[in-house]
Amino acid sequence: MKYKTLYGVGVGPGAPDLLTLRAIRTLRRADVVVLPRSSPYGQSVAWEIVKSIVRKAPQQEHLFLTFPMSREPARHIDAWNLAFGKLGERIERGLSIAFATEGDPSLYSTFIYLQREAPLRWPGIKVEVVPGVSSIAAVPAVTGVPLADGLERIAIIPAGYGVDDLIDIFQRFDTTILMKIGSEMSNIFAALKETGLTDKAVYVSKATASQQRIVRDLRELTPERGDCFAMIIVSRKERTGVLAGDTPPEKVLDELSNGH
Amino acid sequence: MKYKTLYGVGVGPGAPDLLTLRAIRTLRRADVVVLPRSSPYGQSVAWEIVKSIVRKAPQQEHLFLTFPMSREPARHIDAWNLAFGKLGERIERGLSIAFATEGDPSLYSTFIYLQREAPLRWPGIKVEVVPGVSSIAAVPAVTGVPLADGLERIAIIPAGYGVDDLIDIFQRFDTTILMKIGSEMSNIFAALKETGLTDKAVYVSKATASQQRIVRDLRELTPERGDCFAMIIVSRKERTGVLAGDTPPEKVLDELSNGH
Repeated sequence: MKYKTLYGVGVGPGAPDLLTLRAIRTLRRADVVVLPRSSPYGQSVAWEIVKSIVRKAPQQEHLFLTFPMSREPARHIDAWNLAFGKLGERIERGLSIAFATEGDPSLYSTFIYLQREAPLRWPGIKVEVVPGVSSIAAVPAVTGVPLADGLERIAIIPAGYGVDDLIDIFQRFDTTILMKIGSEMSNIFAALKETGLTDKAVYVSKATASQQRIVRDLRELTPERGDCFAMIIVSRKERTGVLAGDTPPEKVLDELSNGH
Repeated sequence: MKYKTLYGVGVGPGAPDLLTLRAIRTLRRADVVVLPRSSPYGQSVAWEIVKSIVRKAPQQEHLFLTFPMSREPARHIDAWNLAFGKLGERIERGLSIAFATEGDPSLYSTFIYLQREAPLRWPGIKVEVVPGVSSIAAVPAVTGVPLADGLERIAIIPAGYGVDDLIDIFQRFDTTILMKIGSEMSNIFAALKETGLTDKAVYVSKATASQQRIVRDLRELTPERGDCFAMIIVSRKERTGVLAGDTPPEKVLDELSNGH
């Protein structure tokens, strides 16, 4: 085998004790741990999560790569060219690489682009994903509102998708998870207001991390630019009520049995 | 505090090394570890995952509770009455309880009913969820197909929801995750055929567990009754192509920058 396996390692939503055993083992064994960050001057969220469990330099290299949040294509092209150069140099030398990603690597992560590109740049390289606790698991854990049970349906929508469509989604799904809400806060607020669902929505940023923020009444938020880790979860909870509420147990348990 | 905290602990999709540190600590500290199973004669999937890390009996009780998969409401009522009796007896004695759930406790788990009911039965009890790696994170890790990137949208649908609606969902979402497919296999196959998406679908059961099964060509499956851990993932992947394929890098990176 010419190249070592390239790992995408989900490091969980923020709390270091939500790392899995497999993630820890993979990060500790790697020659190089890659830590993405959005700015060369800013913190790497992944580093905050893994810094207490990785090996100390120089036994292991901790390679910070910058992937800017920008709408300028040129900045992304520059960033990826730089990243592929640095990664390629190490891959060609036969070093093992673990790319740390917040949450889970298969859900809107920077690693996905590398996962797709790696076999083209380094033919025969094995790419392996270590799944992690995603933010969509962390949010209900900290709010106490389950994502879905029984026959409830979920939509996961990266914001910036068009508000007309959002209204339709809100009406047709029991739970809507709005990711990467960034500059779309005011559009989301408008769609919630129009559907009468403002009271069914909760805003969560950095669930389980030390900077966790939960806002249960969206009226307390100005439609500021949401931080890039913020999510809004809309839970209609109109068809639940299993073992609770005023739905007759027979009906509820019938739904339950159909759903399970 | 009269009662100890009641924990719902996500034990991950199947591989024991996908347990988190928090799950392990919570399971080890509990007086009682609850292990759901679908039949008193069958295996508990949760037990298979945690048996190597929990304390040995009698230092810790391992309480198996049976929640049958049945369409008969009476069987569920009986099962829950029995479960609440056994749990209540231990909660009233001040024992700490960790209820182990496969995957993540907030996504279609048996624990959700207990989470809702507990504060009504034992006023003041604190209920805490330990999020876990869900099957929807495990499946893309084992198939190598990411769930979503950029502006892709995801629908999570418990099957048994109506085939007409399914066709619409397939057409409107980039990724559709069909959970709990049970007896709905032939309806799902029909909807896939009608939308021409059979080749974009993959069948996965027990991702990461030793009994993992992946079927990439659904024609190899008879529309048998799928096992209750099976999922079908439909990935259109028509709007991806970031850094790969024949989409011009500028267009792709523009999407990327809008999406991140």
